[in-house]
Formats: sequence, structure tokens, C-alpha cells
Amino acid sequence: MIKVGIVGGTGYTGVELLRLLAQHPQVALQAITSRSEAGMPVAQMFPNLRGRVNLTFTEPSVDNLSQCDVVFFATPNGVAMKQVPELLAKGVKVIDLAADFRLKNPVDWQQWYGMPHACEDILAEAVYGLPEVNREAIKKARLVANPGCYPTAVQLGFLPLLKAGLVDANSLIADAKSGVSGAGRKAEVHTLLCEAGDSFKAYGVAGHRHLPEIKQGLQHIGGQAVGLTFVPHLLPMIRGIHATLYARLTQDVSDLQALYEQTYANESFVDVLPAGSHPETRSVRGANVCRIAVHRPQGGDTVVILSVIDNLVKGAAGQAVQNMNIMFGLAEDTGLMHIALLP
Amino acid sequence: MIKVGIVGGTGYTGVELLRLLAQHPQVALQAITSRSEAGMPVAQMFPNLRGRVNLTFTEPSVDNLSQCDVVFFATPNGVAMKQVPELLAKGVKVIDLAADFRLKNPVDWQQWYGMPHACEDILAEAVYGLPEVNREAIKKARLVANPGCYPTAVQLGFLPLLKAGLVDANSLIADAKSGVSGAGRKAEVHTLLCEAGDSFKAYGVAGHRHLPEIKQGLQHIGGQAVGLTFVPHLLPMIRGIHATLYARLTQDVSDLQALYEQTYANESFVDVLPAGSHPETRSVRGANVCRIAVHRPQGGDTVVILSVIDNLVKGAAGQAVQNMNIMFGLAEDTGLMHIALLP
Amino acid sequence: MIKVGIVGGTGYTGVELLRLLAQHPQVALQAITSRSEAGMPVAQMFPNLRGRVNLTFTEPSVDNLSQCDVVFFATPNGVAMKQVPELLAKGVKVIDLAADFRLKNPVDWQQWYGMPHACEDILAEAVYGLPEVNREAIKKARLVANPGCYPTAVQLGFLPLLKAGLVDANSLIADAKSGVSGAGRKAEVHTLLCEAGDSFKAYGVAGHRHLPEIKQGLQHIGGQAVGLTFVPHLLPMIRGIHATLYARLTQDVSDLQALYEQTYANESFVDVLPAGSHPETRSVRGANVCRIAVHRPQGGDTVVILSVIDNLVKGAAGQAVQNMNIMFGLAEDTGLMHIALLP
Amino acid sequence: MIKVGIVGGTGYTGVELLRLLAQHPQVALQAITSRSEAGMPVAQMFPNLRGRVNLTFTEPSVDNLSQCDVVFFATPNGVAMKQVPELLAKGVKVIDLAADFRLKNPVDWQQWYGMPHACEDILAEAVYGLPEVNREAIKKARLVANPGCYPTAVQLGFLPLLKAGLVDANSLIADAKSGVSGAGRKAEVHTLLCEAGDSFKAYGVAGHRHLPEIKQGLQHIGGQAVGLTFVPHLLPMIRGIHATLYARLTQDVSDLQALYEQTYANESFVDVLPAGSHPETRSVRGANVCRIAVHRPQGGDTVVILSVIDNLVKGAAGQAVQNMNIMFGLAEDTGLMHIALLP
Repeated sequence: MIKVGIVGGTGYTGVELLRLLAQHPQVALQAITSRSEAGMPVAQMFPNLRGRVNLTFTEPSVDNLSQCDVVFFATPNGVAMKQVPELLAKGVKVIDLAADFRLKNPVDWQQWYGMPHACEDILAEAVYGLPEVNREAIKKARLVANPGCYPTAVQLGFLPLLKAGLVDANSLIADAKSGVSGAGRKAEVHTLLCEAGDSFKAYGVAGHRHLPEIKQGLQHIGGQAVGLTFVPHLLPMIRGIHATLYARLTQDVSDLQALYEQTYANESFVDVLPAGSHPETRSVRGANVCRIAVHRPQGGDTVVILSVIDNLVKGAAGQAVQNMNIMFGLAEDTGLMHIALLP
Repeated sequence: MIKVGIVGGTGYTGVELLRLLAQHPQVALQAITSRSEAGMPVAQMFPNLRGRVNLTFTEPSVDNLSQCDVVFFATPNGVAMKQVPELLAKGVKVIDLAADFRLKNPVDWQQWYGMPHACEDILAEAVYGLPEVNREAIKKARLVANPGCYPTAVQLGFLPLLKAGLVDANSLIADAKSGVSGAGRKAEVHTLLCEAGDSFKAYGVAGHRHLPEIKQGLQHIGGQAVGLTFVPHLLPMIRGIHATLYARLTQDVSDLQALYEQTYANESFVDVLPAGSHPETRSVRGANVCRIAVHRPQGGDTVVILSVIDNLVKGAAGQAVQNMNIMFGLAEDTGLMHIALLP
Repeated sequence: MIKVGIVGGTGYTGVELLRLLAQHPQVALQAITSRSEAGMPVAQMFPNLRGRVNLTFTEPSVDNLSQCDVVFFATPNGVAMKQVPELLAKGVKVIDLAADFRLKNPVDWQQWYGMPHACEDILAEAVYGLPEVNREAIKKARLVANPGCYPTAVQLGFLPLLKAGLVDANSLIADAKSGVSGAGRKAEVHTLLCEAGDSFKAYGVAGHRHLPEIKQGLQHIGGQAVGLTFVPHLLPMIRGIHATLYARLTQDVSDLQALYEQTYANESFVDVLPAGSHPETRSVRGANVCRIAVHRPQGGDTVVILSVIDNLVKGAAGQAVQNMNIMFGLAEDTGLMHIALLP
Repeated sequence: MIKVGIVGGTGYTGVELLRLLAQHPQVALQAITSRSEAGMPVAQMFPNLRGRVNLTFTEPSVDNLSQCDVVFFATPNGVAMKQVPELLAKGVKVIDLAADFRLKNPVDWQQWYGMPHACEDILAEAVYGLPEVNREAIKKARLVANPGCYPTAVQLGFLPLLKAGLVDANSLIADAKSGVSGAGRKAEVHTLLCEAGDSFKAYGVAGHRHLPEIKQGLQHIGGQAVGLTFVPHLLPMIRGIHATLYARLTQDVSDLQALYEQTYANESFVDVLPAGSHPETRSVRGANVCRIAVHRPQGGDTVVILSVIDNLVKGAAGQAVQNMNIMFGLAEDTGLMHIALLP
């Protein structure tokens, strides 16, 4: 059994990690920490866990966490980078669900997250945890930076086209829509039901923190510089991301559908839909799957890719567990075969 | 492995049965029938099942279904009663998720469902599949009538009070609210998102088909005649039932909380919340659980019980699988330990 | 033109007051105050008002407000009672949308609102602003206590029965459901879309602040002591209250439908639906109307009344404007004839 | 007073027309027809109209309609074209909210709507009712083709750029999202609350009927051929369209914000938001307004325009009334000054 700890378990990625890990056959939950809620039973805050998770939130403590084989950080940005080095030194593996180790360039980090990076030296070691791209590196990693939700949906959608070098990498467009859970469980006015409900809007058009992460990833995939316009939107629902991607073909392509099906033929968690399909976010609700459809409207030179994930699962907690499975040599789908809840 | 067939799998109870049975370790799905959709892959209609359920809808046929150990009917009311006798004769066990075998009195059936009953002779044999009440009978049953969604939430809520004979059985009130999935997947105007969304209303106040079922069940539990006012409402959401129950105490009671906790101490799927709690429907979303809280406002003589279930799980498909587990001597919670999806 | 001021206009009752008053033919908006947002244009916070309300939030100041003919308080409980006496002294009429002047007994106020009352001496003068009950007193009032949202729906629903003395006043039950906007625009976790959305629950069963207000009102209407069980619930939607009311008949009644129709025959803002109807909250969305249906299920002795309002209109801002019209001798429906938005 | 008739008033555009016309100071509602519902009071189908619209649905009849000054067609595509010529011959003006007269080329009509056009001869006379483009022609029109909902939001968003010739007209992208009411009030499975709720998807990517309408309009505005990729999506809410538009600048532009503000400076129903804004669909709920924001992310050469409308108001019924006001020489905003409902 893998001894698992969670730092900062009071948010939505925290409760989702608990839902998945509590049902994982190879995991023993050791500790879940929360400075603010220390002493409260986890199931009191999250009643869906009643009778299944008997842990109580504890004060974060290295002694405690160093007993674990792996620690998941479900903390706000900037927390993990202060604690990870000590855990690594004690031989604990770390999977960070925040952004602390996603950007390779500390200058980018400081620009987008507004604080200097606390451990630039280990940035190079951190592996970007998108298994469909970095599986081999993840196997050997001590520290995995779990991708953001938008970046997961967008990178998996563009990957086949960029790898094949079929499109103009300088004029990519990602029009992405996310459920409100992506904003977390903080008490804020703009995510109240009466503010975000029954309405729809774009946000962060001038620049969103996931932009540099996506560009870094796409450049790594395509092996060339990338120009991307990224526009996130807020959906009046809880879970789900839908990315609508636009790219211009630079050469004639016989069969985009076959390209996508072949690229992901051996991936357990990427599902290429039949030609002409439109994936629904509900088809992945609660499941660790990315469903993708590729279109070429009116036979023109613009390709439209539709990519959906559950932002809390394949976009966060599920992908983190997938990374854990890879890091510990388990079958990649262990504990991740939940079927999506529909309706 | 238990060989399972499903008749009428194109509705919401059908897809939910498939979600649960496809993840059940002791089940082999043999056949799923649909007159209207014969020939269509199940996963084409329900994309959440892609890669997990490879069956195709077939024409209903007794030859086919008689190969099964058990057949679930997820058909409209009035269908099962025409086909069940032949299956029983061939030694196939049957669990009917419709209402055909719930009412013991065929006169009541005809009054509330508007058609004569097709097999009155086996009504007596049918066991009402509420495990918390009829577990022993279910073990030996060939034919189980799976309870309705409202009846499950209401009976489990009133049960401890009626068994203990603490309340006036002639003035019970059940104010129940259901998500729209309870109305099924039929194309109708009143359940369109633009009709049922962002609004709330009562319906069927003059008389709802679940009224005689609930009264029959409460009379069986309490051993006396029952007077019940039942008012169902439609919630602007998909899954979940919340029953708010009112009863008048006829004698002083020391500790209602203890009564409820003791009554359900050994039940895997009934969770009595701590005193002062208010269960949320989301705490059982996708899970086979009924969560209950009991209150005595202002210390008066009116008891208020709050009872929540997922109408598609403990209110339908989950309870049907629970009954199957009991009928086949499996651990009652086999394949039913899914943790609710929250948020 | 009536010169109007608003104190505390940054909440949902504030923006709704602005929507109604900006379209009122006899009103000149003079000032809207907010300590926290002083200096911000109102339309920047509430974009629906762009081009229609050009005011900027200002610091509260008596000099400023005393120029008005009437001042609406849309402030948290406990604020108005500190400022009202000075305004009255300057000849300004006041309509308080908070609870400060609703309870006649200052002991009840302290018990339910947790603070001593700041001006007990004027409690007696304050008129409870339910026009269907106190119209004549409102005409002469200097200070009107605008009713709460639940109390409006519940009192209008029970009124005809209590006035006629047809039911047992000691065993009334009000099972009420409210949209989330009733909780206001404060940043809190429990009203986030991800907490209150796609779910349903009861709250405050042990005792809600509207209980003493409703009981006081029903006792005034019926002229006798009242026993009431009041259970509020939170609906996963923004606007709308649905009260389902239960009462036991103490004598035989020929025609409840006629009783309700006659009682409200001359009321512009109470609409009694035809026999057998079920009012929907959407039928009053944005409109200053209470729609009511009365039922007697199975011809028994329990009466079920269904009463719906928009909690922000007839349950708050709309009723406040209705009171203003009465206080200033305008036609009661001036500026209040908006048709509900459906769908 | 303008005598008004409505043909086909049982859908969402029908009830919205009634809501607006019943509150219009210069309108006398004469007749509303429905073959299926003849004899039913309008307010019985749409309870929000109780006490405000006393009409009963009648059989369509030319004698009846020819008494009107103007007739609105809120019928399915293909109905109006069969009845309009006779009405025009009798001197009745017509505003068609369906698509029958939007496309100038009958070949396009047949291709996209699957039926030959019934009166090609008057296609040329029909004026496309987008006031911001065709106001002068609308003043003299006998027959106005009211624009579709998507086309309204997309054309108003691209207009300033195309008029100024600043972008590459061959690579325009419109990523549009609509509330479910755009699909109408028909009983269909895909628009049930349980199918379209709590989920998000694209549809019609291969080709949507609004594509040729938008292209025709943009070509008219820009005076050149246009290449457009149009991807519609279905939002889990009732009202509102949000169009996210992408265009590539072909020359350097000093001030896009000023361009948009100047272009719409004199338009009552187009609101250009301050630089950096993100319009919300709720800010136009129930109002006849299009709110627009223009962005140039990261100072690149891709312009992003955000355009929102209420699909039932500025996208249908409201714009139809705006056209009526223009046709009859009334102030364009007569009866159209409703403030959006927020929250």
C-alpha cells in the first residue's frame, strides 16, 4: 500500500483527491493537513465522505508528512515551493496540484504569479505531469507538477496537429469554457450562485495565468515557437471544461480523424469520438477522461477541435492520481475507472 | 458471475443501471433491449459509457432474456406485468423498477394507473424491495418490486417513529421535492430546461401515484391505518430528492436522535446525521445512500425529519442492485460503494 | 416628483430598488449611499443599470439624505435603527427593508437578532408594511417596516383561512423554499455556485429569524395565538420563493376557492389561480405579484396552500415601492406593472 | 394606436412579443393565432401574462389579420412565406421573426432550409431588419425579415472592424454560445433539463443555418467577400447569447476602443463597454440591448470582440418591436426601455 498525505485538503481539488484516493485499492490515506481547519473531521466539511474517510484535518508538520511515500499539495499557488525541498530531502515523492513547478522559467513565474520563486534550483527537476506527453519522465520523477485544467484540455486537443506539423503554430486560438469549481472554494462575490449562475461571460482576456503554461507545453510538443490567443469563459455550472480550438492548416491533409485516432490509440484516458461528434462535458463528469472530436467545417482550411474534461478529475485530482500510479509502477488506470455520472 | 439482462434501457434508470452494473464485480451484462433503438450501440446514446459498455440494444425476446439469471425491467408502467410471468416460469428472477408490482391491491393499481392488472395472481408473491423493511423476504424472492423514489425517501424517514408508535399516524405530512430526472427521458414540454429550469413548483397535489404506495408501506411498517398528505414538487436540478416530513408526537420522547441512530445502526445505506444537521441532496449524488436528520423545532410536539436520496440510485437503480445482491447472497454493498460526487 | 434616497445600495435589494425606481414615473433618485463603495458609479457595480442610473455611491450623510422626501434602508439588520430617528425628526419618511422595525416587542428583537434595540420608543409607531393587511395605517405612516420575503408569502397564503377562523391555528406548518438571492450579496462559502448549485437542503429548522415575524403577523391577522412550524429551504436558483402551507380545517367549508377569490378580489398584487393550479416561481420573476392556489387533497381535512413571490420584488424592493406609493397617495401600482420574465 | 396581430404565439418568441407589446404605449393587441391552441386563453399557457393579456388563441384567418396595421410572424421556418403575400396585398405590414425572408438568394434558402421558396419575387423587397445597418430602408419597408439571434450578436460585433476595413475578412471566427431558449418550446429530448442542464457542448460545427445569414450580412457591411468559421454552443441556461469573435488586423490601429465607441455613439441599443470589460449575458436579461467589449490580447494582431444579447429580446422579439417602431415613425425606443433583470 502506498502511504499518502495531502497538504491543504479543504478545497475542491482536496475533496476530489479524497474521493478518488479513498476508493483506490493501493492507497492508505495517512494524513490530510489544514492550518485553518485543524481538528475538524474531514467528513464534517464534506458530507459525501461520511463513513468512508475517517481522517481529521491536522496541522501541517514535516515529521508527519515525511512518513508518507507521496504527498499531494492541493494548496494555493506559492505554498508548495516553500515545503517541497524538505520533503524531497526526506525521500518523499511530491505531486503539486498548484502552479508552483509548472513554468520552467522562474522569470515567467514571477511575472505571472507576482512573487519570486522559492526554489528555482529544483524547477529543472520537476516533471510536467501530462502523461500523454511525459510518461517516461514521470516514471522516474520525484517531483511532478500537475498540469492546470485549461492546459490539459488545450494541449491534448492541439497535440496531434502540432506533432504532425500540419498547422500554422503562430495563429492558434483556444476559446475555453470552465465550470465555476475551477475558481475554488474561496468565499468571493464573483463566484456566488447569484453572480455566476444563469449567466455567461469571458474573463482574463488580457492575459490568464494558464497562457504561459499552455504556450510552454505546446512549444514542447511541437518543437517550435507558438502564437496563441487564449480566451477563458465562466460557465453557469459546477464541473467541466470545454475547449474549442482553432488552427489553420498549412498543407492538405487526407484524414484528420485517423490522425487523432492513431495518436491516442494506446491512451486509456483520451477518447477520440467518431467523426461529426460533439463531446458534452457531462460525458466526463466525475471521470478521468478527455473526450475529443475534430472537425473541418465546410472543408475549409480551419480545423476545429472540441476537447472536454472534468476540471476536477482529468484537469486536477484524477490526473494527479494517474501520475501517482505511474510514479509507483501501478497500472495507470488503477482506481481511475469511474464511469461518468450521466445525467 | 451473475448473468444480467435489462429490458428497456433507454431511460435514466436504464443508463444508471448500466453505470452501476458495468462496475459490479459479480455481474456479466448479457443483454439490454429496446424496441425503439434496437441495433444502436448503447454507448452511442449514453457517451459516458464509451469504452465500458459494448452492448447494442436488441429487440426484446424471451429466448434471449431467459438465458439470464436476473432481468431488470426499466420500462414504463404496465410493460413488465405482461412479460414477467413467462420469465419466472423459465426460472429467471425479476426486479421491476416500474410500479407494476408495488401495490398489493389490483383495485388500487387500476385506480391509480388506469389499466387493469395483467397478472393479479402473482401480485401476492412479489416482494416490495425496501431492504431496510423486507430484507428476509427479498432473500427468497423470485420477483422484487423496486420501490419508487419518493416512497423510498419518505418511508425510511418515517420508519423509526411509526415502528415505535410515537406519532399520530392519521396526520402525517410529506413535503417532497425531486430533481427533474424523476420524470424520465421522454420528450415533453414541461421538463424542458426552459420550462423546469430556474423555477420551482408543486404538482399533483390532488393525488400522485406514489401516495397509495407510500401509505401501503407506512401501514405495513406501523401496523395501523395511516393518514398522509403528500405534496411533490419539481426542483430545477437533475438528481436528488429531499423529503421534509412532519409528524405530531403523541407522547413525550426522551431522545429522538438515539431512536434514529439505533434503528439504522446496522444499515449500510442509511446514514443518520448528527443532531442539528441538514442533509444536502448533493451529499448523495451518485451514491446509494439515504441521509436523514431528525429535528424537534422549539421543543414543540411536531417532529421534522429531513431525508435525502439520489432518486436514480437509492431511489431506483442502486436500490435495484442492492436487491439483486440480497437475492443472490452477495454482500449487500457489493458494487455499491461509490462515493457521492461533491461538488 | 418624489425625491428618493437609498442607504446601502450595494446588495440585491439595493439594485432591485434601483431597477424599479429608475423606471418609476414619479420618482427622482437623489442619492444612494455606501460606506464601502463611495465614489464608484452604481452602473459599474451593476451593469444592467448602464445608461439608466448615473448616480455614484456616496458616503452616508444626514445633510444629504434629509433633502429627500423618503429614504429606503437596504442595509444589514441593526443599521437603520441607529439613523432613522434623526431622519424622521427632519421630516423625512423612511421605509426600512431590513428587520429593525418589524418586531413589536424589543425583547423578541434582542433574542432573535442578538443586539439590544437602539430606539424602542419608535417601534410602536412603525407600521408593518404589508399593504393587504395594513393599507390604511401605511397611508399615514412616517416609518414603514417592510416585511421579510418568507413572511410575505406565508402571511398572504394563510390570511383568508385565519381571518375566516376556519383552521386550527395551533398546528400551522409552513414549508418554504427560497432562491439564493435571499441570502444577499455577501462573500460566503455556503452561497457559492459550487455549494448551493445543483443541490437542495433545509436550513435553520431549529429556528429562523422570520419565525417570530410570521407568528406576530398571523396572530394580528387571526386575532388569536398561533402555533407554527416553519422550515425554510434553499433552492438552487436565484430568485423566487415558494411557500407550501398546511392547515387543519376545524369545520366543514363549502368553497375554499371562493373564499380566496373574494378575499383578494380587490388586490392588484395578489392573484388567486383557478382551482387545481400549481403556481410556478417563474410566473412572478421580476414582478410585484403573489400568486396563490388552494387545495384540499383527497377531500380531507388538511388544506394545502401554494404561495409564490419573487423574493426581491413582492418580497422586498417591489413591496417597498408599493408602500411608498401608498404613503405618498399615488396609485398603488404606479411603476409596478412589470410583467414577469418567462421563460 | 397601432393594431397588431401575431401569427403563431405559442413559442418563446411569441410570449416575449406579448410581454413587450402588452406594455407598449402605442400598441393595441388585436389577435394572436395558433392552429393547435385555438380557444385557449393566452394567459393559461403563459401565467406571467395573467391579468395583462386577455386574448385567446384563434384560428389563423386572413380576414381577421387583415384588420391589423402590422402582423408579426413567430412561426416555424416556411410558414410565413406562404401567407405574407396576401397580407401585403391587403396593405398590412409584416415583420417575420422566422428565417423565410432573411436570405436574398432563394438557392441558399433551399440549400439550408430544405424546401423551395414560396415567394421568391418578394425576397428582393424584404428588408433585413438590423436597424444599426438598414434603418433608412426599414422606415419605408412593408416587409421586414427580423434577424436571427446569433446573426445579431455576431454582425454588431464585427461591424466596426469590417466597415473600417481593418481586418482580414477571409479568416473571421465566431465562437458563439446560446441559452437553450434559442431552440424553442418544442418537446424534444436534447433540450430537456436533464440533457441540456449542467453540461456544455458545441453543435452544428459542420454547418448551421445562421452561417449563410451571417456571411451575407457581413459581406453587405464590409462590401467584400467574407470567410467565416462559425461554431455555436449550447449553454446550460435559458436566456442569453455570448459571441466571442476573432479577427486578424491587417494594419496597425491606434485606438480600437474609440472606433467602437464612435461607431455606436448614436445607437440606443448598442452599448460599448469601457476598455478591459467583459460583458455578462445577465446584464442584458430581458433588455433590448447588445453590450460589446473589444480587446487586443498581449498587444498582438488578433482582435477579440465580446458581444452579448438576450436572444429573445435584441435577438428576436425586442428587435422586432424596434423595427415596428421605425416602420411606424415612433421613437425607436418606445416600449423598449426595460432594464435588465439582475441578479
